[in-house]
This record gives sequence, structure tokens and C-alpha cells, in this order.
Amino acid sequence: MLVKSKLKYIQSLGQKKFRKEEGLFIAEGPKLVKELLEEEGVNVKEIYALKDWIDENKELLISRDVTEISAFELEKISLLATPNKVLALVKQFDNTSSITTKGKITLVLDDIQDPGNLGTIIRIGDWFGVNQLVCSHGCADVYNAKVIQSTMGSIARVRVIYTDISEWLKSQNNITVYASSLEGKNIADMQKIKEGIIIIGNESKGISPELFALANEKITISKKGKAESLNAAVACGIILSHLS
Amino acid sequence: MLVKSKLKYIQSLGQKKFRKEEGLFIAEGPKLVKELLEEEGVNVKEIYALKDWIDENKELLISRDVTEISAFELEKISLLATPNKVLALVKQFDNTSSITTKGKITLVLDDIQDPGNLGTIIRIGDWFGVNQLVCSHGCADVYNAKVIQSTMGSIARVRVIYTDISEWLKSQNNITVYASSLEGKNIADMQKIKEGIIIIGNESKGISPELFALANEKITISKKGKAESLNAAVACGIILSHLS
Repeated sequence: MLVKSKLKYIQSLGQKKFRKEEGLFIAEGPKLVKELLEEEGVNVKEIYALKDWIDENKELLISRDVTEISAFELEKISLLATPNKVLALVKQFDNTSSITTKGKITLVLDDIQDPGNLGTIIRIGDWFGVNQLVCSHGCADVYNAKVIQSTMGSIARVRVIYTDISEWLKSQNNITVYASSLEGKNIADMQKIKEGIIIIGNESKGISPELFALANEKITISKKGKAESLNAAVACGIILSHLS
Repeated sequence: MLVKSKLKYIQSLGQKKFRKEEGLFIAEGPKLVKELLEEEGVNVKEIYALKDWIDENKELLISRDVTEISAFELEKISLLATPNKVLALVKQFDNTSSITTKGKITLVLDDIQDPGNLGTIIRIGDWFGVNQLVCSHGCADVYNAKVIQSTMGSIARVRVIYTDISEWLKSQNNITVYASSLEGKNIADMQKIKEGIIIIGNESKGISPELFALANEKITISKKGKAESLNAAVACGIILSHLS
């Protein structure tokens, strides 16, 4: 059973302000919650689930804070269009300490505003072993429910920090910064890299001129047809598949 | 002004059944509508727009059926969360005649159910010059408003047909059929192709075993990290960037 104050508390986590204050985010559905429970270093604080899911996952739930709720109650706290058996409150990750770019590939996101795109990019990073991501303050909130759901669990394995990326890029020395543009080296002809910073631009505006000027390698995904642009997450996947 | 019967008529086109009966689809927003108006072979039947958009696009609208409407009326007929100046009724394309796979790359979609993914795949096809797409009956409707909006105009340049893809694949002789799988040739090591059929699988189930058995070349996007899968549209983009 869910007391009213708890219900309101969980609902409040739909808002960034409260998520930040509480240092928590919401994850939903059997697949995602199971993955987070099994991942090392993830702190799943509270679980709210239907009886059948709890019965099916007894072993996974040993010494966990689990509350059995009704389908009706789940509907009230779920942020999904179709609530799916279980909702968990998870501790936000430590994203304050600085990251090292030496010897690694790092993605930099310039105002990726669509939560689905941000989540998909995190999942792409995780696929290609790129586990750090630097977001501009104009990016969607990584703990937004849509981002979390579309990362499909990769949120636990990819470090995401928010910063002034122009300042941050200026502080990075002796490392190649790649930016995609309409004119640049064709990525299909490039060698794989072991180290570098790759900037992915905003969905409609692309990479801002200020950041573009900080890049020392312009790359391009060669076009044969007529589409004006590629989706930001798709472009990110293509670039990493060639360079990483 | 919009008479009530017209308003109801346009609203009915939100449903696949009525779209099919009328042979029309809805396209919205200045960018998409402008692109469709300028594209050869696209039959834009009716346009409903705010005064300022009509004033700005006078030249484009010569001998077009344009109705000036209020922001309030637009809100009533728009399928977008944020209505955007103009809505057009466009004739569906002729997708009944058969397609030729000889000398071309053809995408086959096995139950791509998410409209955003289908639209993004059409846009990716258009980027890489792949202008024909064969959908299973389980795919989202290509004239669904979300598909149309996410194609960003590429809908006018990519031919999409719906068929029983298992039967259709069996009728294709002397052509290589590629299917992505966890074990297969690494696409990064493959030569570019000029001709072939590439199957893209369902978002959660992948390619059905029946179709998979009809493929004669298994390909894979090599993974370095831990993500379980890639988004279907992202995988499609990566495959085309290596093969096309």
C-alpha cells in the first residue's frame, strides 16, 4: 500500500527541481529495474511493484526496500503511458568530479534537447565502449524519465557531467577535438582513434559556431541522397562506428 | 475560416482508416510543408495556414488551394503538441506497383512499430540515397502523423511499400540479402555494395527467425561496451554508412 504522502513524493520526482533536491531518479519496467539491480555501483533505494513481479524476483530483492502496490497505485505514480509492473527510486550518480580525456574517447553534447535523443546517445556510447559524456547546460536533464527509459540501463555505465562546454574544451590540451560538418574529412576514410573528443550538435542548429571554432578536425558523413540532415543520435552512432 | 464539417474531416485523417479511404495524409509546420510544395511529384491538395505564413509564402502558393485560419482553428486540427503555422493535406503516393531490386539497395523493415523510428529510417535512407523501402504489415503506418513529421520531407523521395515480406523475399532471386545479427561479418571490414536487400529487425524482437533464415549474409555491428542492443534506426544508419 502506498500512503498519500509517499505518492505525492514520488510524483514530485517527475520534476527536475525535486529530483535534484532528493538526489534521486525514477526507473520503470521489469527489464530496466532488473538491470539496475544487477549493476554494480547502482544504489536502488526503493522499489514499488505489483505482487506478481515481486514473486518472480524474490532472489533479486533480498535486503531491498520493496513495497507491494496495486495496479491502480502504480498508474498514479508511473510516468509511462503504459505502466509496467515496477517503479524504482534510484540514487543519482556522482557526476561532480572531473573526467580525464587522456587515452579515451569522450562525447560532448551541444544542447541535445530531446530526451529520447540523449538517452539513445548514452546507449550508443555504451555499445561502443565510450563511457563518458560531457553535456552543455542546454541539454535535456539526464535524469528525466524519458532519458532514463531510453538508455535501457546504459545510464549505469556511462558517466554524464554537465558543464560550460566552451570553457571545458578550452581547458583540454593536446587532444584532438572532432566536429561534424557538411565539409570535412569523410569518416568512412578515416583511421580508428583511441583518444579524442567528439562534439555532437543540437538537433536543429547543429554545433554552435563558438564550439565549432574550438575543433581541430572537421569530419563529415558523406551524403548520396537529398535529406537535409541526419538525426543527432543516428549521426553519433555512425561517427562512433567508424572512429571508435 | 474553417467550417465545422471540414474541421471534422481533417480531424478524421488522424486515423489510418480514414487516411486510406481518402488517400491523403497530414503534414505540418513551415519547413515540412514548404519542402513538400517544392518537391516534384508531390500533390499538396489543401493548405490551412495562419495569415502571416500565407503572406510570407505568396509565391509558393500560386494556384494552390489555401484557406486562412486562426491560431485557435489550427490548434483544433493540428496533431502536433505545438501547432506550427500551417497544416497541409497531401495525396498519398502510389505505392502499389512493384519495385525493382536490381542494381539498387533496398531496405526491408520487419515490424518497425515505433512511428519515430520508421520516419527516422526513411530520412536515413534518403541521406544515403536508398530510396526504396519494403515494410511488413506489422510496421507503423507510413502516413501516421509522427512518421511524416520525423521524415522531415524525405517521405517525398523514398518509396515505401507494404507487403508480406517473407513471400516478397522468396520472390527475389540472385540478390544478396543482408541481416544483422550478433554474430556475422563485421560491417566495418566489409566492402561497399551497389546492390542488395538489408533487413532491419523489430525494436525489441529483432529479425524474426523466418526472415533471418532467408538472409544469405549475416552482418554485425561490433560492440565494445555493454549495451544490449542499438536503437533500430541507429543500427540502420550505421549499416548504410558502411555498406552504401
